[in-house]
Amino acid sequence: MTTPWQHRFAQRTQRMTSSAIRELLKLTERPDIISFGGGLPAPEAFPVDEIRAAADAVLARKGSTALQYSTTEGCLRLREAIVVQMARYGIVVTVDNIIITSGSQQALDLIGKVLINPGDRILTETPSYLGALQAFTMFGADYVSVPCDDDGMRTELLEDALRVGPKFMYLLPNFQNPSGVTLALPRRWDLVRLSDRYGIPLVEDDPYGQLRYEGEHIKPLVVIDAELRHAEDDGCYSGNVIYLSTFSKTLAPGLRLGWVVAPRAVIERLVQAKQGSDLHTSTFVQMVAAEAIDRGVLDRNVKRVRELYRRRRDVMLAALERAFPDPDMGVGWTRPQGGLFLWVRLPHGLDSLQLLTEAIEQRVAFVPGAPFHPDGSGANTLRLNFSHADEAHIDEGIARLGRVVVRQLERMGRVPARA
Amino acid sequence: MTTPWQHRFAQRTQRMTSSAIRELLKLTERPDIISFGGGLPAPEAFPVDEIRAAADAVLARKGSTALQYSTTEGCLRLREAIVVQMARYGIVVTVDNIIITSGSQQALDLIGKVLINPGDRILTETPSYLGALQAFTMFGADYVSVPCDDDGMRTELLEDALRVGPKFMYLLPNFQNPSGVTLALPRRWDLVRLSDRYGIPLVEDDPYGQLRYEGEHIKPLVVIDAELRHAEDDGCYSGNVIYLSTFSKTLAPGLRLGWVVAPRAVIERLVQAKQGSDLHTSTFVQMVAAEAIDRGVLDRNVKRVRELYRRRRDVMLAALERAFPDPDMGVGWTRPQGGLFLWVRLPHGLDSLQLLTEAIEQRVAFVPGAPFHPDGSGANTLRLNFSHADEAHIDEGIARLGRVVVRQLERMGRVPARA
Repeated sequence: MTTPWQHRFAQRTQRMTSSAIRELLKLTERPDIISFGGGLPAPEAFPVDEIRAAADAVLARKGSTALQYSTTEGCLRLREAIVVQMARYGIVVTVDNIIITSGSQQALDLIGKVLINPGDRILTETPSYLGALQAFTMFGADYVSVPCDDDGMRTELLEDALRVGPKFMYLLPNFQNPSGVTLALPRRWDLVRLSDRYGIPLVEDDPYGQLRYEGEHIKPLVVIDAELRHAEDDGCYSGNVIYLSTFSKTLAPGLRLGWVVAPRAVIERLVQAKQGSDLHTSTFVQMVAAEAIDRGVLDRNVKRVRELYRRRRDVMLAALERAFPDPDMGVGWTRPQGGLFLWVRLPHGLDSLQLLTEAIEQRVAFVPGAPFHPDGSGANTLRLNFSHADEAHIDEGIARLGRVVVRQLERMGRVPARA
Repeated sequence: MTTPWQHRFAQRTQRMTSSAIRELLKLTERPDIISFGGGLPAPEAFPVDEIRAAADAVLARKGSTALQYSTTEGCLRLREAIVVQMARYGIVVTVDNIIITSGSQQALDLIGKVLINPGDRILTETPSYLGALQAFTMFGADYVSVPCDDDGMRTELLEDALRVGPKFMYLLPNFQNPSGVTLALPRRWDLVRLSDRYGIPLVEDDPYGQLRYEGEHIKPLVVIDAELRHAEDDGCYSGNVIYLSTFSKTLAPGLRLGWVVAPRAVIERLVQAKQGSDLHTSTFVQMVAAEAIDRGVLDRNVKRVRELYRRRRDVMLAALERAFPDPDMGVGWTRPQGGLFLWVRLPHGLDSLQLLTEAIEQRVAFVPGAPFHPDGSGANTLRLNFSHADEAHIDEGIARLGRVVVRQLERMGRVPARA
């Protein structure tokens, strides 16, 4: 049953998926390993009792609706709650601009299904989110990628990349996965203006936007785009940006609930694609989330999660300072203002996949950076998650990892061997 | 943003989807209309209180697991429960032969993603399930279709159709959607033998298998295939059939839970595809279903649903006898032994889409048969659902529909106009 398509699929995704992420997720489950590998939220941050009460109320009051089929675009009450949420961030839309998805991974899949033809090029940041590359690659996407610095995508390099005619641009402007960097405001304006000039849509993936631990909120691309075009009077968005977000990091990932904000015509196409994909997202889960939001669970939990992850980020940054070699050894890392991840750059010549083997022997894990690079670079980078392990384990895990890095550098003759 | 792919997609699926099913589903919601249109289970058949208890137990005892990410192939406990369920029908498999999907619609989508290249031909029954045609068409499928009679696909016509080299065969052997017919045992053997001889896999879609109201259970294709090959000793299935089913008709569709049984190598590819599609199905919902099954909810509910739908089917058949024109007027219908649907054939020249317009004026609805025909035929057919409306509404709705049909035939000069 092997076909040219499957062959290409196997070549491209098996390498990225099976070998790196999937195997690592398995290791995450070994209880003796301190894992900074996955992107798991802290289970102690889940509002279990409050979701339990919401689920009970939904089944008690509207059980047969919650267990029945429902419309593909998603339950009205949940879309209304999202309209309110979005408005807080300046994103002015109506329920017709929203489709509920089974996590934002499904949003990426539906976008791929509707927009990508085999051979189309997608413009991404380098590095970019692995799950998006996986989703798009399934539909035969190729990539053109633009490097980042501490202010996100280097938009001064963007216009050259746009001239190759990408189908759309895909970015995570806030606390990017994997790098943790945030796209600066002037660069957001560059992006939106160039998107407009070249007629190339922007896919803005924003799973972490609510999880800012310091600094000022920066306008999303979708808001800048609406400002550029003077949004229509009916409040229905009709611009150039497809915006995605999720409840996975603010409420709970096990619900599998995300959403897309886009012009009505795009939503209609996504609805058609979703109808063929899974008919609709679980009615029950949507109603539980809507009920929880109405009860204020989401707002309370976002505050709680921010506090928890801010502390864990700080613990990880302090541990890195203590345990890792000096910057003049060619080792550096990002200082994210939010989100779940930070990004370590090692000296050239040091391969993080090799490092991982040794790290696992020392019972600590991370994700090697290469699979996040659609251009095949990044062998000397790695991603650390700071949301899942508790503070003591972060301390201990980074100490172990630091020793592994120092040992590798010693072998390369980069630091004086310790006595 | 219109591309050749999207153009084709628009041409093929918009016609099928928007105009027929989606618009009709909207009408279903109008409370004054008696709808035999959708495929909705009876809400009074949902075990609401029992699912409420199961959900509460899951969140009380394992809340943080239920709300966390989980593996793509699905929760082990649910896959174990499915292994036990499958064994009752002679389907001997291990958990490695199973992937949990977000409803069986997602199984169809994943099969399309893994197996179909644009232009590939899929062999189907005529008529066939609209949701499958929709899912496969998204990946650029074309169709070769084989007509059915009261014993299902006419397998004496199959070999000619196989010579055009379809990628796989797609069938619903039990109480087919839309026709309600069941594939006879000798034909199942024909199919499996031809599948083996031509090396063309069979996709066996079995959402209604447990809902048999009379007659003897007939072996699934996957069991016949295993018998043909003498299944391996380790109990892990490795044959030519990909089998799908769902909890949507036996437990509740709002959960969105289905599964695939297939050889391990196929499951691995489906897992990769699902990882890009939605990472995994809701952990919470999977654990609630597993808990409910452990508590005996599924078995009790299947018995309840069988009783309820058997009566409704009988009421509909009796009402059709009373209200519809005689068979010698060219009107006939199937007598399904299970499932949710029966199928009406009208005299040639009578268009069921036209009929629908008039039916809606009389406040009764159904699904026109043409969209279920990949070959463009079937204008004189329609599908009736007997699971959703209660007995009094079935009686009244069929009486209304009968009057509409009689009037149409009168206009065609087929029956003497009544005084």
